[in-house]
Amino acid sequence: MAAPAEFIKFIDDNANKFIARLGEAVAIPSVSGNGAHRPDVFKMSAWLDGQLKSLGVTTSLVDLGKHVMDGEELPLPPAILGRIGDDPKKKTVLVYGHYDVQPAEKSDGWDTEPFKLVVDEKTGRLIGRGSTDDKGPILGWLNVLEAHKTLGLPLPVNLRFCFEGMEENGSEGLDDLIKSETARGNDGFFGGVDCVCISDNYWLNSRTPCITYGLRGLVYFKLTVSGPTRDLHSGVFGRMVHEPMTDLVLLMSKLVAPDGTILVPGVEDLVSAADEEERAIYEKLDYSVEDVNDAVGAPITLSDDKVTVIMGRMRMPSLSLHGIEGAFYGPGAKTVIPASVSGKFSIRIVPPQTPELIEPLVIQYVEQEFAKLNSKNKLKIENLHDGRPWVADYKHWNYEAARRATQAVYRRDPDLTREGGSIPVTLTFAESLGVNVLLLPMGRGDDGAHSTNEKLDRSNFIEGSKVLGTYLYEVGAIKA
Amino acid sequence: MAAPAEFIKFIDDNANKFIARLGEAVAIPSVSGNGAHRPDVFKMSAWLDGQLKSLGVTTSLVDLGKHVMDGEELPLPPAILGRIGDDPKKKTVLVYGHYDVQPAEKSDGWDTEPFKLVVDEKTGRLIGRGSTDDKGPILGWLNVLEAHKTLGLPLPVNLRFCFEGMEENGSEGLDDLIKSETARGNDGFFGGVDCVCISDNYWLNSRTPCITYGLRGLVYFKLTVSGPTRDLHSGVFGRMVHEPMTDLVLLMSKLVAPDGTILVPGVEDLVSAADEEERAIYEKLDYSVEDVNDAVGAPITLSDDKVTVIMGRMRMPSLSLHGIEGAFYGPGAKTVIPASVSGKFSIRIVPPQTPELIEPLVIQYVEQEFAKLNSKNKLKIENLHDGRPWVADYKHWNYEAARRATQAVYRRDPDLTREGGSIPVTLTFAESLGVNVLLLPMGRGDDGAHSTNEKLDRSNFIEGSKVLGTYLYEVGAIKA
Repeated sequence: MAAPAEFIKFIDDNANKFIARLGEAVAIPSVSGNGAHRPDVFKMSAWLDGQLKSLGVTTSLVDLGKHVMDGEELPLPPAILGRIGDDPKKKTVLVYGHYDVQPAEKSDGWDTEPFKLVVDEKTGRLIGRGSTDDKGPILGWLNVLEAHKTLGLPLPVNLRFCFEGMEENGSEGLDDLIKSETARGNDGFFGGVDCVCISDNYWLNSRTPCITYGLRGLVYFKLTVSGPTRDLHSGVFGRMVHEPMTDLVLLMSKLVAPDGTILVPGVEDLVSAADEEERAIYEKLDYSVEDVNDAVGAPITLSDDKVTVIMGRMRMPSLSLHGIEGAFYGPGAKTVIPASVSGKFSIRIVPPQTPELIEPLVIQYVEQEFAKLNSKNKLKIENLHDGRPWVADYKHWNYEAARRATQAVYRRDPDLTREGGSIPVTLTFAESLGVNVLLLPMGRGDDGAHSTNEKLDRSNFIEGSKVLGTYLYEVGAIKA
Repeated sequence: MAAPAEFIKFIDDNANKFIARLGEAVAIPSVSGNGAHRPDVFKMSAWLDGQLKSLGVTTSLVDLGKHVMDGEELPLPPAILGRIGDDPKKKTVLVYGHYDVQPAEKSDGWDTEPFKLVVDEKTGRLIGRGSTDDKGPILGWLNVLEAHKTLGLPLPVNLRFCFEGMEENGSEGLDDLIKSETARGNDGFFGGVDCVCISDNYWLNSRTPCITYGLRGLVYFKLTVSGPTRDLHSGVFGRMVHEPMTDLVLLMSKLVAPDGTILVPGVEDLVSAADEEERAIYEKLDYSVEDVNDAVGAPITLSDDKVTVIMGRMRMPSLSLHGIEGAFYGPGAKTVIPASVSGKFSIRIVPPQTPELIEPLVIQYVEQEFAKLNSKNKLKIENLHDGRPWVADYKHWNYEAARRATQAVYRRDPDLTREGGSIPVTLTFAESLGVNVLLLPMGRGDDGAHSTNEKLDRSNFIEGSKVLGTYLYEVGAIKA
């Protein structure tokens, strides 16, 4: 069901007002990863709570307790739980977003002040920290609410909001809240929710809207080889003792091949090949090898075949070597034999892989390979953290609704994507609530979410707000 | 020829006075590697110059110009060139030492103030920065001069002194001085020098005096693999692109085996096996696998055979992987694909290996191995710095003199050692002057030269001074 024309017109007519509100939100430096900004994160929660209340949403700010960061105990920003509409004949949509942002300093390389929204009239860009991640999308929902309130239109669905202030810093406290509320069943905050919509990711490119139905999981390993009790001088001890770096580098070299193949036996075998139907999704995507080369700045794709390259991100596991802790890392030349070195690597996993399946395969393999070295050094391997992958049923009505809304606003089919990264809360919602979860991004692939000069295109903000509203009408039109 | 009994007695009788003088020297924090201490290095040069003059040495302080350190232009401390004796019938011995020291702060973990010489009566240790490296040995020569001056004894040889103040910071300026003076032939400062004696290293252990006739050289490489123009997120780009870390780690794994064997073809082949005579030297050394284990704090020697282990340091090349610049090196978990990573490794080389022979072998091999990876990343390999190895003829009369002097004072045969590290000035003297160079250490292997709680044992200071003096008599007794 198409959204009413007056809703679409209201969004267009009030674009400048909406952008001004985005400016207010960006001006609050709600950086969750820096203790000095914690009061700003609270300020942002109060600002957002005020906005929601003024638009008719019943809210509660849930205290998530305290945490320790960089040795300092800090109060966690509250989760904002909001509800509007309780019509049992309507579907109930849960919306998630986060009101905290990544750190930003002008000196990082920003062309403008990061916490002052700059409207570039020439390019149509709204530049500022949080513009696309994730204040723009949250404000998209506010725009939808304001249109309905002002126009006196009933919302086509019941809405539930879950906005957090710690997403950029591990979402601390949120999982527990979701699980405890879910445990309360229909009496809990999430009782009656029919589907979830998360707008916290990006189009594949800067041209084509997308809908995302999968995320990779992760297992992050720390592989430590220790020998002497202190760093040694390579002149004095070179070729007298087993050097931990020699052992570690050899072990790390046996994890992944230059072509990206994971060498840990059993890991690749878990993943079945894409069938024709799935392959067709990747072939259809508006994406090219050139897009990847442009994004990374060099022609270094593992393959020249577009489908192989995009499947590498979306539906294949990957293993990356991140670095070594404990070795010499500075510029210049230092002739040290480091005493204890820890290789960091992680495996992005896809269904049916789980951390529980992957961890023992890696540990057993690394221990076997280490035994082959006949080294007198000591080996230790740890799983630093992990998360399961997530894939949703993209044929579910929730996705159909999003697809139709995108078609209605953008006049084109959205790309149907899986992402290579992780948004852990997605999995928590999917598993705790047992309902379909949809990722419906507002911004473009070049928004620079965690980078300098973060932006949201004006058209993405305005058309994106229309997509969110239209999506609600499409969900409302679903036969129960 | 034995030293006169009155010389030996004088050294014993004046031990406390000599230790007090060492205290004066240690009290001047002549740290060459810290610009703030540069005036102290100059102060130390003036102090030493005054001591030499008062003992009858004609000196000149040679201005070595300026250098830039940490962005600051600083005057280089002068080289002190001293001469005493010009009897054409006597041999002329050149003595080298350095009056600068390594940095030291009590907060580094010192038990006492580093720049206050503490005499531990219980252990006989003289504790303080520079006590063993290299103020103690320099003062050993002053003790010898004072004995002869006070007793009215003629020196058995002509002496030349070359003391520098930048040894702990690359000996800047000294090579040029040595080469320009040498170029002046007999008119230059080094004209007529018959042999060189350097006391700036250590016994193999804490029990047996030693004489050192070899040092390894070094070639230090930086191996860079570059891909994207910026660091990438492993979730987004993992298994889409060639990752520089994957390539680099694989290349580094092909350089050296866990048993210490250098895998670069041709490098090991250059070194011939030890013959019976040479092997006998290592077998005779007062050293055990346990000594190595104690020194490094863990039982990690590459072999359980003492001779194999000691030859690994003294007469075999070694390859150590020092670390990686540009990768993630901190604690915790970061899911980065580093854009450009540089592996640092160095090869300690022994005759007949030279940097000129080793560098092309390494570069060719690394390039060949990189080509096998079929990677689209870019490779670069650089030689950051190098130095040739040095081995002296230990049957030369200079060594015979040192051996007899050690036997006379310590009543035992010295260990005949080669060291695994490098003292570049040794090679410069050997090659520029074309005379035999001897390393005649004063301190013990556990002195902690560059570490906290640096010490020189009282007995090593006093008996060592006797060795230096006796050595001069033994040289003086050599038939021309």
